[in-house]
Amino acid sequence: MADIIQPRLLKGFRDFLPHAEMERAALLEKLTATFRSFGFVPIDTPALEYAEILLGKAGGETEKQVYRFNDNGGRDVALRFDLTVPFARFMAEHYGELYLPFKRYHMAKVWRGENTQRGRYREFMQCDFDIVGVDTAVADFDILATIASAMRALGVQGSKIHVSHRGVFNRFLDRAGIGEKSVETLRIVDKLSKIGAEETRRQLSELVGVGIADEVLEFIRPGDGFSATLDRITRIAGGSNPDSDRLAELFGMADSCGLADSIVLAPSITRGLDYYTGVVFETFLDAVPDIGSVCSGGRYNDLASLYTKQRLPGVGASVGLDRLLAALETTQAGSKPAGYVKFVIVNLDSALAGEYQAAAAEMRAAGIACEVFPETRKLVSQYAYSEQKGASFAVVRGVTEKERGVWILRDLASRSNTEYASLEALISAAASEPRPVGDTTAP
Amino acid sequence: MADIIQPRLLKGFRDFLPHAEMERAALLEKLTATFRSFGFVPIDTPALEYAEILLGKAGGETEKQVYRFNDNGGRDVALRFDLTVPFARFMAEHYGELYLPFKRYHMAKVWRGENTQRGRYREFMQCDFDIVGVDTAVADFDILATIASAMRALGVQGSKIHVSHRGVFNRFLDRAGIGEKSVETLRIVDKLSKIGAEETRRQLSELVGVGIADEVLEFIRPGDGFSATLDRITRIAGGSNPDSDRLAELFGMADSCGLADSIVLAPSITRGLDYYTGVVFETFLDAVPDIGSVCSGGRYNDLASLYTKQRLPGVGASVGLDRLLAALETTQAGSKPAGYVKFVIVNLDSALAGEYQAAAAEMRAAGIACEVFPETRKLVSQYAYSEQKGASFAVVRGVTEKERGVWILRDLASRSNTEYASLEALISAAASEPRPVGDTTAP
Repeated sequence: MADIIQPRLLKGFRDFLPHAEMERAALLEKLTATFRSFGFVPIDTPALEYAEILLGKAGGETEKQVYRFNDNGGRDVALRFDLTVPFARFMAEHYGELYLPFKRYHMAKVWRGENTQRGRYREFMQCDFDIVGVDTAVADFDILATIASAMRALGVQGSKIHVSHRGVFNRFLDRAGIGEKSVETLRIVDKLSKIGAEETRRQLSELVGVGIADEVLEFIRPGDGFSATLDRITRIAGGSNPDSDRLAELFGMADSCGLADSIVLAPSITRGLDYYTGVVFETFLDAVPDIGSVCSGGRYNDLASLYTKQRLPGVGASVGLDRLLAALETTQAGSKPAGYVKFVIVNLDSALAGEYQAAAAEMRAAGIACEVFPETRKLVSQYAYSEQKGASFAVVRGVTEKERGVWILRDLASRSNTEYASLEALISAAASEPRPVGDTTAP
Repeated sequence: MADIIQPRLLKGFRDFLPHAEMERAALLEKLTATFRSFGFVPIDTPALEYAEILLGKAGGETEKQVYRFNDNGGRDVALRFDLTVPFARFMAEHYGELYLPFKRYHMAKVWRGENTQRGRYREFMQCDFDIVGVDTAVADFDILATIASAMRALGVQGSKIHVSHRGVFNRFLDRAGIGEKSVETLRIVDKLSKIGAEETRRQLSELVGVGIADEVLEFIRPGDGFSATLDRITRIAGGSNPDSDRLAELFGMADSCGLADSIVLAPSITRGLDYYTGVVFETFLDAVPDIGSVCSGGRYNDLASLYTKQRLPGVGASVGLDRLLAALETTQAGSKPAGYVKFVIVNLDSALAGEYQAAAAEMRAAGIACEVFPETRKLVSQYAYSEQKGASFAVVRGVTEKERGVWILRDLASRSNTEYASLEALISAAASEPRPVGDTTAP
């Protein structure tokens, strides 16, 4: 026999065992249902593309992190490191086949050879959704409403979307005479929650002087509600303008839908990325503020300028799936997720194999997920397995039960048995039980 | 402005536009629901692994096709080329954390730098499901019943699972005195449907002589039903034995579940892969026989011998997703799939933006997927968009309708309008409409 190869994973890469994968699947399914209910449609793009295309716009940091190599045909290829660049390439390439506005979602893995020491992974899943081809308040709000709806669908109690507008900030910076330092200023302001007000003030003072630093701090100060804050930043930015009007429109729509409490005007939100040009936002959970934003994004005025002369304005967001999974684990701790099967049909006698399978088929036809234990083993071992699978009940029928003409339903939690005169009676009794959370097999 | 980079894909790689991706998603969701209803649970493994681990058992052909490179840390890595090798590594690595029998499904992309000329892709999705840790007829049958159930869930009319047993064949070969030529014999027999009976006879005669070639052909001859065929091959193989008993058990269970007509004993099925040791099977669709098997697999006696001394017998199958998608396209041609949204709320006046959003929120709360058109445009353009999205209805309300206190429901297919005195009345009228096929947003 050959030597054993030691099974092991690359650093920064993960297996998902059933429990973890079921939690991730449940999260993705709830997000998917939300996206669909808002009219987003799915696309997919390859994991591997020409390096030139993926890295066209990327700076040195990205280049160092990307998995890039020559394929067997000598092509210079790379694994995608995000879903934005492939989406831009996709829109440019298929522009003639698509209709605008185009609302898409995309959930897929990306790869970055990052330093893994800070709990970062080299393979992780991203989840992006965007509306491309229009520049309107309705589209901006659609993204915010989708986020709010997704949080509700996930059972998250208390989430706040912190919203701001790059344009209003830039108007203020121009008015303060530091327009040419906007990128550096935005970068400092963006770190506010991490470095604190004092350090922000110090860094800003160094960049633009103490007086203007204080104006910036006054601009980004958290306010007393959306309207009051909007009034203040509009005034500081030099009065009413299309960008502040956009924020007012957004708030009006939020108010109409009962979402006013979920949306906070937070002028300190700027988002680090240079390509946002309009509304920007981050989403925080009241219960786990330390975890940071679980869904962030904003408006950009041109998605695919690298690949097409066609101008494509858009607005979109990215869900931080790993953060959100961690948050759900914290907030929903103790609520043991149900398995996919509600019933395990115990296997006591191989002569009854056909009967067990017929019972399983009948239960599935009634919309009940179940499985036949695939081996005759001791009852205690089959019960232990059933509990591992997250089932609620075991169905017990051996030769004795068959002779007596009964089916036994064992409640795995209470360890109590109930006898039924027929499988139908057992099924109809079980059907009145509440359906387990994880059971998605209903027709 | 920088030069435009021509957007293009690597040869053998595909984008999935919304229509194609929605069809793929619908297929995967139906398969997922079926797997769950039988107690299979999901896992995930990395796309990238140590080349040594992925290629440990692979021969020259596989090595040539694999995407293998040195990562930035100088590690010799490769993209997975199937889901079986990673599953074997997974079972060895997590043996202590898992319970047996272990029933898992895994749907994920794999990569092979194959010749793309025969319509093969270099990136494609695989879908595998297995039961590991037992060697029983119940487990074998579970896989067959899952396939039959999946075909039903997909709406496929008339599918047949062709089943055979490697062990029965090997017993016959041993009896005929050509046991040492079993691999070559199985390879020739496996090509029967491609090369025809005459060529099979010629190749077999060359290998084992005319007399034994004719015995082989008699063994693999299609029979007149499961029992008659089983009797014949059992007799030719030297009489009743545990392997022919296994086939009889399978047929007994199929009969108990009303699946006897879906399962065909086809002794010519051998499956090319060396690692199958027991039951083997392929699935054919009556309506599109030319497309070949859409789901194939079998029993193996040791999954992970490369990575662990722990013996792991199992049985499993792999769904040919691309073939199945092509088959569904052929058999369900003309049935235009519905979009995710049933309603588009037309945008006639930005002053009514809040009202449109409130209406959308109310409809979604009633379980109806809908979207607000994100821009004020001509009606005809918004209707065209609504049809592109596969919606059934447009909801029309401008200033005039608001003054008149009405909501208009436009049936996009018949181009007829109906007035309602309230949104609630419109919703309840719409709720009585049959739900579109693609709508999965129900709570």
